[in-house]
Amino acid sequence: MEPLLSALSSCTEALLAEAAGPVAVAAAGRAGVASRPCPCPLSHGDCSLNRLLSRLLTARRSLEICLFAFSSPQLGCAVRLLHRRGVRVRIVTDAQYMGLQGSQIGLLRQAGIQVRHDQESGYMHHKFAIVDGRMVITGSLNWTTHAIQNNRENVLVMEDAEYVKPFLDEFERIWEEYNPINYRFFSQRQ
Amino acid sequence: MEPLLSALSSCTEALLAEAAGPVAVAAAGRAGVASRPCPCPLSHGDCSLNRLLSRLLTARRSLEICLFAFSSPQLGCAVRLLHRRGVRVRIVTDAQYMGLQGSQIGLLRQAGIQVRHDQESGYMHHKFAIVDGRMVITGSLNWTTHAIQNNRENVLVMEDAEYVKPFLDEFERIWEEYNPINYRFFSQRQ
Repeated sequence: MEPLLSALSSCTEALLAEAAGPVAVAAAGRAGVASRPCPCPLSHGDCSLNRLLSRLLTARRSLEICLFAFSSPQLGCAVRLLHRRGVRVRIVTDAQYMGLQGSQIGLLRQAGIQVRHDQESGYMHHKFAIVDGRMVITGSLNWTTHAIQNNRENVLVMEDAEYVKPFLDEFERIWEEYNPINYRFFSQRQ
Repeated sequence: MEPLLSALSSCTEALLAEAAGPVAVAAAGRAGVASRPCPCPLSHGDCSLNRLLSRLLTARRSLEICLFAFSSPQLGCAVRLLHRRGVRVRIVTDAQYMGLQGSQIGLLRQAGIQVRHDQESGYMHHKFAIVDGRMVITGSLNWTTHAIQNNRENVLVMEDAEYVKPFLDEFERIWEEYNPINYRFFSQRQ
């Protein structure tokens, strides 16, 4: 039940390395050596993106993600790590945004993660994730590098069942609605 | 403490008329007569937009609004109504979006409502409102007609102080940060 409100900015490699063990240590080398500061323009201490990652990385059984736009390599790396650990990851995203340059969706699918998308003219504009059915992470933030580095955003982390349940119900509803068996590949004329 | 999660769609004139008294009755004529159904494509019963409006219209003292995009005529009408009633309304919005066609920001300023905006390259991407310092309304929804009619969105309404306070603190922080005395009208060269 900790609301997090701030512009997000971070280099998260150290945190991912800590969570991942040997898998990400090579990539995390830059941030781990105090005498050789990371050359990237992001902050490296306690910050909102690191706190968001640390919440995500507590997942042990399931992770539902429902995002309009997903292009952050750090967050994509964390999600693939959870998938490799055996966490059941399911992603719903917006059809028009998932193919844009820099999107993580292709990499997540390549990794074997289930992804479904809308088929509507409007946007699938949600921005939430549910960890182990007990914690919802929601707010204004799309998981994009641009938003993390530049925007004024808010992220809420809530464990109250009264808030988690409607998001879980919404996820299951649209997961079924966007089941590929329902896709219409050709226009249906009467 | 009622989470509202659904795609929003509504014709809200009847609700505004009920809340406003004579002021909005003329505009509400269409929706009020059962034998003459409203020709608009929106639903007219209990729906998320009507519930959102009914929460907003409980404001008696103050309304802080922090929105990336604001183009919904119904929500604009509700905010102007509250201003006329003597509620202290303050709005923070995104500089790049406030001037787009259909934006309500100009009309709200014309009505005498205080509006401030960012001066950053990133977006002021928040989407929340605070009613009387006791209720926060937040989520993925920009207050635009397109989002209300077409998108998959979520709106959370929370009265827990632990959730309201960080949003209030954030509003006051950026309200001061975006004070016009801080605007830079010319680039500052070293």
